[in-house]
Amino acid sequence: MTDAAILVIGNEILSGRTRDANIQFLATELGALGIPLAEVRVVRDDTADIIAGLDALRSRYTYVFTSGGIGPTHDDITSDAVAAAFGVALVRDPEAVRRLALRHRGEDLNAARLKMADIPAGASLIDNPVSQAPGFRIGNVFVLAGVPSILQAMFHSLKPSLAAGAPLQSRSVTMVAREGDLADQLTEIQSRHPEVEIGSYPTFAEDGPRVSIVARGSQAAVLEQVVDEVHALATRLEAAVIATD
Amino acid sequence: MTDAAILVIGNEILSGRTRDANIQFLATELGALGIPLAEVRVVRDDTADIIAGLDALRSRYTYVFTSGGIGPTHDDITSDAVAAAFGVALVRDPEAVRRLALRHRGEDLNAARLKMADIPAGASLIDNPVSQAPGFRIGNVFVLAGVPSILQAMFHSLKPSLAAGAPLQSRSVTMVAREGDLADQLTEIQSRHPEVEIGSYPTFAEDGPRVSIVARGSQAAVLEQVVDEVHALATRLEAAVIATD
Repeated sequence: MTDAAILVIGNEILSGRTRDANIQFLATELGALGIPLAEVRVVRDDTADIIAGLDALRSRYTYVFTSGGIGPTHDDITSDAVAAAFGVALVRDPEAVRRLALRHRGEDLNAARLKMADIPAGASLIDNPVSQAPGFRIGNVFVLAGVPSILQAMFHSLKPSLAAGAPLQSRSVTMVAREGDLADQLTEIQSRHPEVEIGSYPTFAEDGPRVSIVARGSQAAVLEQVVDEVHALATRLEAAVIATD
Repeated sequence: MTDAAILVIGNEILSGRTRDANIQFLATELGALGIPLAEVRVVRDDTADIIAGLDALRSRYTYVFTSGGIGPTHDDITSDAVAAAFGVALVRDPEAVRRLALRHRGEDLNAARLKMADIPAGASLIDNPVSQAPGFRIGNVFVLAGVPSILQAMFHSLKPSLAAGAPLQSRSVTMVAREGDLADQLTEIQSRHPEVEIGSYPTFAEDGPRVSIVARGSQAAVLEQVVDEVHALATRLEAAVIATD
């Protein structure tokens, strides 16, 4: 089965300064391609931590996407760490230099910026239409920028190279109910449809408790059947259905 | 050094349905206590994945916080997995039953809800002032609900039991500049202050490129010095400083 993982390289996430925006974007895009996101790790800007996380994920999942740490400053150590994980040298890529030169002319293309053209030997470039400095792919690992607008643009560049699976679809029913009142009947629905993954998510809104039942799977007809059974459950509980998506 | 990790148990995060809100909350709270968050993992609602993630994190970091999977429905498997990771039985806790009975009377306290009173042998309860169903602590692991309002209330309940470190402080300077123009001088500032962690975060705003330089450390005077040096750098670059926090 095709699946994926994300390695977020980011002291700014771990410090709480920034709320990550890339996980949800990649999760949604990958899900739509039928490539379920199976694990995420957020590690420090630390070479050993990056290598350990990358090695664990790339050996287990079909694809790994990293975010962050490929800029020009001293805290950008991802490319080095990825090269080390793959046991290859970091080499200056002429095509990457050419792209950087489109944006930065003369003295502007200084040593710090040229660092962004150093990629692991054997890697291929990923287009960055926003700010030119490319990402890269090596093996099953895609190395992307952390800035959301750039990560998103890079993902759209690389998307055609992914081997898509059976797209996962999702249906949800939200009702005015408490989880504990429907748990047993929901377990029965799940048991009848083992090929569907059914989740139950309570919220505690001002106007009372609600629960969203989310069914995910690759067969639309089975999902429709689950929705029907959840509606019947709501009727039995006399729970108002607020939304069916 | 005291540090911490988070294990998010959440198909809803990995599917993209929900954007996690707990990482930033815990990161900020822990940072203020001088307990830096060193790693986060997001895993599926899968017993083996939860155990593997938990074992890796609890052996490495001072504290581990889990979020999600302790409700009454079939997809709530965290307590089982934590008990298995610690090699202990899951036992019904009389005090947890008593608390659930405060909220759920008679038939309302059904088998599904009573499941929320089953905790690993030897664990101690964590108060849940929102919906009574407690979290628990076993060893260095704190098992919390995934619903943000409940997770936050539980964290405030357990906070006094944490051994705080030297609180990390953070200063930041945001200027109108491009990272590549200040990278070398920033490297020099970082080299002069190895006890401070300096990060550089670019944004590509509508009105042009900006960069935020963030310095984190435990000594206010050193951070002030770093801020002064970053201001001097901005002056040399003729870059407008937008904010100093």
